[in-house]
Amino acid sequence: MTQKTAIATLGEFGLIDHLAEKITLTDKRSLKGIGDDAAVLDYQNCLALVTTDLLLEGIHFDLSYVPLKHLGYKAAVVNFSDIYAMNGRPKQITVSIGVSKRFGVEDLDELYGGLQLACSVYGVDIVGGDTSPSLTGLTISITCIGEGEKDKIVYRSGAKDTDLICVSGDLGAAYMGLQLLEREKQAFTGDADFTPDFGGKEYLLERQLKPEARKDVVQMLHEAGIVPTAMIDISDGLASELLHIARESAAGCRIYEERLPIDFQTAAMAGQFDMNLTTAALNGGEDYELLFTVPLGMHERIDAVKGVHIIGHITRPGLGAYMVGRDGGEVKLVAQGWRTT
Amino acid sequence: MTQKTAIATLGEFGLIDHLAEKITLTDKRSLKGIGDDAAVLDYQNCLALVTTDLLLEGIHFDLSYVPLKHLGYKAAVVNFSDIYAMNGRPKQITVSIGVSKRFGVEDLDELYGGLQLACSVYGVDIVGGDTSPSLTGLTISITCIGEGEKDKIVYRSGAKDTDLICVSGDLGAAYMGLQLLEREKQAFTGDADFTPDFGGKEYLLERQLKPEARKDVVQMLHEAGIVPTAMIDISDGLASELLHIARESAAGCRIYEERLPIDFQTAAMAGQFDMNLTTAALNGGEDYELLFTVPLGMHERIDAVKGVHIIGHITRPGLGAYMVGRDGGEVKLVAQGWRTT
Repeated sequence: MTQKTAIATLGEFGLIDHLAEKITLTDKRSLKGIGDDAAVLDYQNCLALVTTDLLLEGIHFDLSYVPLKHLGYKAAVVNFSDIYAMNGRPKQITVSIGVSKRFGVEDLDELYGGLQLACSVYGVDIVGGDTSPSLTGLTISITCIGEGEKDKIVYRSGAKDTDLICVSGDLGAAYMGLQLLEREKQAFTGDADFTPDFGGKEYLLERQLKPEARKDVVQMLHEAGIVPTAMIDISDGLASELLHIARESAAGCRIYEERLPIDFQTAAMAGQFDMNLTTAALNGGEDYELLFTVPLGMHERIDAVKGVHIIGHITRPGLGAYMVGRDGGEVKLVAQGWRTT
Repeated sequence: MTQKTAIATLGEFGLIDHLAEKITLTDKRSLKGIGDDAAVLDYQNCLALVTTDLLLEGIHFDLSYVPLKHLGYKAAVVNFSDIYAMNGRPKQITVSIGVSKRFGVEDLDELYGGLQLACSVYGVDIVGGDTSPSLTGLTISITCIGEGEKDKIVYRSGAKDTDLICVSGDLGAAYMGLQLLEREKQAFTGDADFTPDFGGKEYLLERQLKPEARKDVVQMLHEAGIVPTAMIDISDGLASELLHIARESAAGCRIYEERLPIDFQTAAMAGQFDMNLTTAALNGGEDYELLFTVPLGMHERIDAVKGVHIIGHITRPGLGAYMVGRDGGEVKLVAQGWRTT
């Protein structure tokens, strides 16, 4: 392993200069980026959307199997996903990091490399941030600003009785990827010559380590002339997110187990782990797919949008939130959230 | 001591509901706050300013002598200060917190109480955030969004040869307040019946524990028809901030030791601690005063602005950045920054 360059050799201002020198502004809304007390942005002919995420080492990521470049990429993408979930487009991020002395300049270059790659793929500028020493590992806080049009912004609260419930892509794969990484980490602990066996499971790993935000789905909906009545991105699991829509929209919902979109690698892995596949699809988080509702009359139009699946429908408020099982029985949907450790 | 309510009893969504129920939106630019994937803001007839700060326990604050309510207040105010330093007005913040299980619901109520007090004093809305468990103490990440007019926004880069260098308020008091708190903490460690002696030093403590952002100065400059050529807030110390202005403006500067504004409590405390008073004023951080430059021709106008002091002038770039001492000798200004611990 090559020697790392201690961050202290650069100092705070040297570090900011070092990180900033590779960062350029590309969007016309970014008037001034890093280098002053605040960034200056132009949101004069649209509305501004703002979202933020805090990522803490040991809680949100495990650097024993997550490469820093992937972590940077994912940290940016999960914020973009929130902006797309408003039917908007991400334009800028600020990035704050706290780093303990076990991290060197090369580590931060990796992390920023991932952040910048994500920004370049999605057309987003890094316009500011904060750097700080930390006593305890790595902290990443990202705030994303995006644009939206007043009559196109989609909230969680607009779902109406009989609306179709739709989801993009497939569910549960990121969760299975996490299980796989955790298993291999356990195995690795006992044997120094251990080589992880990831053959045929690349999709699961990619979903966990390098997720994408569904910019393409937002674009396809736009081209199809569809403005969803409600939308949210799936970060905590389908059940949790659907309950958010139901609650905010004061509505009930029914989804159908047989309609849940699941990749064959996810299914195979669940079998291997002897885990319930439906539970993984319902409660496994971090898929960053879009969950949204559209009026019943748009059935044909939404059917024609590639990669979007209709999984159920919105009901009157009194009817609760349930999944109809393959056997016809109803299972109440339950939210997942964190508990303090 | 009363029993704390474990955050786990509320769960993530319960906690968000609990914190959000006391939060209301007051500004017309805040269209949608907490409760969706992103906040929705209206910056259609001005520019948006964005700044962010990351505060980590053990690095930026010590909870053995900083009450959580004060911490919340200060965490918000330091962000407002960055927006004022652009000659703008803060309008919204997002607040992300990471909390270990040693914190209870009552602790977060204290922290948010301070945040909300600051927001109500400065007319700012809390529009979003993130909550997370943490393995290691308290993490606070705040992003502030503010408004500014295109021809009124002040950067660090506009200072010109012969411009007057001005500073609001007085310098070094927050640093002396920190020394005082640290000393009393040391003393306290040895004696359980110890009562800290803060008599006559209230100003120093207030400057450290409950700083204010200079909204009033920005307002007074506006009323006096003064748009500074360059401006920055003093968070890292006068010397560091002046060097930022000199570098960004490609200019030199001279300030005069005898002109540095220092409160008598700061001076008395420096004497008691046998510390160099000028060093405290130059390098002691966290005063959150405004440092700015105005054209020489505005001498009389700026002299009439209450609480603003002219401490020197900008020079041609080749002449470096120096303080002229009381003895007439020149001392080179040196920046302070963090080192990883």
